[in-house]
Amino acid sequence: MDLSNASPVSVAADIIETDAVIIGAGPVGLFQVFELGLLEIKAHVIDTLAHPGGQCVELYPDKPIYDIPAVPVCTGQELTDNLLKQIEPFGATLHLGQEVTVLERQADGRFLVETTKSTRLLTKTVFIAAGVGSFQPRTLKVDGLGKFEGSQLFYRVRNPAQFANKNLVIVGGGDSALDWALHFVQSSENKPESVTLIHRRDGFRAAPASVAQMHALCEQHEMQFLVGQVSGYEENAEGQLHMIKVTGNDGITRRLPLDMLLVFFGLSPKLGPIAEWGLEIERKQLVVDTAKFQTSIPGIFAVGDINTYPGKKKLILSGFHEAALAAFGAAPFIFPEKKIHLQYTTTSPKLHKVLGVETPVFD
Amino acid sequence: MDLSNASPVSVAADIIETDAVIIGAGPVGLFQVFELGLLEIKAHVIDTLAHPGGQCVELYPDKPIYDIPAVPVCTGQELTDNLLKQIEPFGATLHLGQEVTVLERQADGRFLVETTKSTRLLTKTVFIAAGVGSFQPRTLKVDGLGKFEGSQLFYRVRNPAQFANKNLVIVGGGDSALDWALHFVQSSENKPESVTLIHRRDGFRAAPASVAQMHALCEQHEMQFLVGQVSGYEENAEGQLHMIKVTGNDGITRRLPLDMLLVFFGLSPKLGPIAEWGLEIERKQLVVDTAKFQTSIPGIFAVGDINTYPGKKKLILSGFHEAALAAFGAAPFIFPEKKIHLQYTTTSPKLHKVLGVETPVFD
Repeated sequence: MDLSNASPVSVAADIIETDAVIIGAGPVGLFQVFELGLLEIKAHVIDTLAHPGGQCVELYPDKPIYDIPAVPVCTGQELTDNLLKQIEPFGATLHLGQEVTVLERQADGRFLVETTKSTRLLTKTVFIAAGVGSFQPRTLKVDGLGKFEGSQLFYRVRNPAQFANKNLVIVGGGDSALDWALHFVQSSENKPESVTLIHRRDGFRAAPASVAQMHALCEQHEMQFLVGQVSGYEENAEGQLHMIKVTGNDGITRRLPLDMLLVFFGLSPKLGPIAEWGLEIERKQLVVDTAKFQTSIPGIFAVGDINTYPGKKKLILSGFHEAALAAFGAAPFIFPEKKIHLQYTTTSPKLHKVLGVETPVFD
Repeated sequence: MDLSNASPVSVAADIIETDAVIIGAGPVGLFQVFELGLLEIKAHVIDTLAHPGGQCVELYPDKPIYDIPAVPVCTGQELTDNLLKQIEPFGATLHLGQEVTVLERQADGRFLVETTKSTRLLTKTVFIAAGVGSFQPRTLKVDGLGKFEGSQLFYRVRNPAQFANKNLVIVGGGDSALDWALHFVQSSENKPESVTLIHRRDGFRAAPASVAQMHALCEQHEMQFLVGQVSGYEENAEGQLHMIKVTGNDGITRRLPLDMLLVFFGLSPKLGPIAEWGLEIERKQLVVDTAKFQTSIPGIFAVGDINTYPGKKKLILSGFHEAALAAFGAAPFIFPEKKIHLQYTTTSPKLHKVLGVETPVFD
């Protein structure tokens, strides 16, 4: 048996070995790919969201941003699209819809990274570009209700079939609440027994057409809309949620029977597992230096809204600068022998090759 | 006589009083206008060049830049045009074609700024965004020749009439040398007695059409082209330059009579008067902190290629970040009473007003 090609360190077959892992595919995480790419460092990018763009796309895809330098106006989606175009030459691998749960230094100095989708990577450097953290659904704050999560209480619809023929209550006043209410009422396959929408006031942060359609379906007795807030619940002898209490703006609390409860209160960012990795933290931000934007653990860098240093402002353009300096800071971990020089994309034939563009001929 | 409206400090009538002066109208100086504008601070901008854009426009107007975040590719001119569009709402005053010669703190804490065109400003804060310094023509290095500068030796054509009927020698191999040679040969008003072009080699860094035209004019004996380098000179009894020595690639030195000498060796950046202002300097860079990008003199900030700090990389995108933090750092000098909060251009109605855009209506 010839072992001459065996790796000196034994690595499980499913582990991806890489030079750089970027946690977060928001604008700064994407630009980190670019800055690493210029230094010929390939990166893997992980994000909890199912698409790149981070909060720019999640929270304000269509709202204009005015303070990206040399871009007088763009939307969050356009910013993301431009960054994706810019990093195209570097062939980064995106691992989306998964959260990093494990970040552990190994005996050989590398870091083991694991995600909720069982992606496993061994990397020389880590760039945390997680913005305000990972986006988690805001929960309904009623004491004791949490125990029904996953059985009768849901914050996301993963399997619409489980709501078929059930008495469904949907809580919320945004597009998600409205869209799912309309979807279930009009569903042919998974139609619930009844659909009741609850919102704290008779005004919605949703497309007016959806609101009008909801009101029309109420008039046709296809569904019901209640103004009020969920203030309590009752369970039956089997320990199942079978009633919620809804307190109206008139102060009166009504009881409403149900089988399933869907809550759409929007997403809220959470630092999540990042807090457990032993990194120095100050007011929920990762402490970094301003030369390399390195955290308290060598080889782990933090860029964008998640970091803090004297003078820090949570600006996208600051994250871009931080990503550039972090790339230079990380290079010695990946190329310990190589002296890294700053080259310019305008004049460097080497960078032109990396970018896949032609070098103009000058005297 | 009612003096109730008189200024508490007596100020000469021609002095402009302002909150901020930016030295340098390159990309970072222009973006400094933007970041100050968001904080409602109006700025005056001074540059030695006759147009905004700095070295981006002076040195590589048409060459592509690839590393401006979210701008996959743009030229130096496009970058400048986009920045000019972005700062339009802020109505900054540009003082171009003049160099700052004086920067002096006054008794009241403000700074007096004076330029070569006698523009005088009194300002609360100064932002030095002078890049690699001011652009000065590269000189012809021949001992003793300097004394003819302004009388018979010129690096710029300010008054073409002074070359009429003279024996003119033009030195250089770029567009400026070619264009002026062609201009004078074909001039009807200011035609010199003779025009000789000298370049160190028979190859030009200029538009091929101009080179072809120059060769055609030589064949028609309208002008002369010599390959060689100016290696010495002779003056006549009146102390006037009347002969230069040109050493050819064959090693032979020839004598060439002349009245006027025009040299176009391109522009080279010089720190210039900035070195005299008492600011802490390290290897020709201004030392700044990384929280405010303030120099060793409170109230004077330095952003972009001219500053230095641990980790500094001379990247345009770093200058943009520095300009943002410098604006926040400067605000207390201008609004000592006001607490400055970071607001976002996407969501702040106040910033929308400042930018002159409409605030979208949300719930």
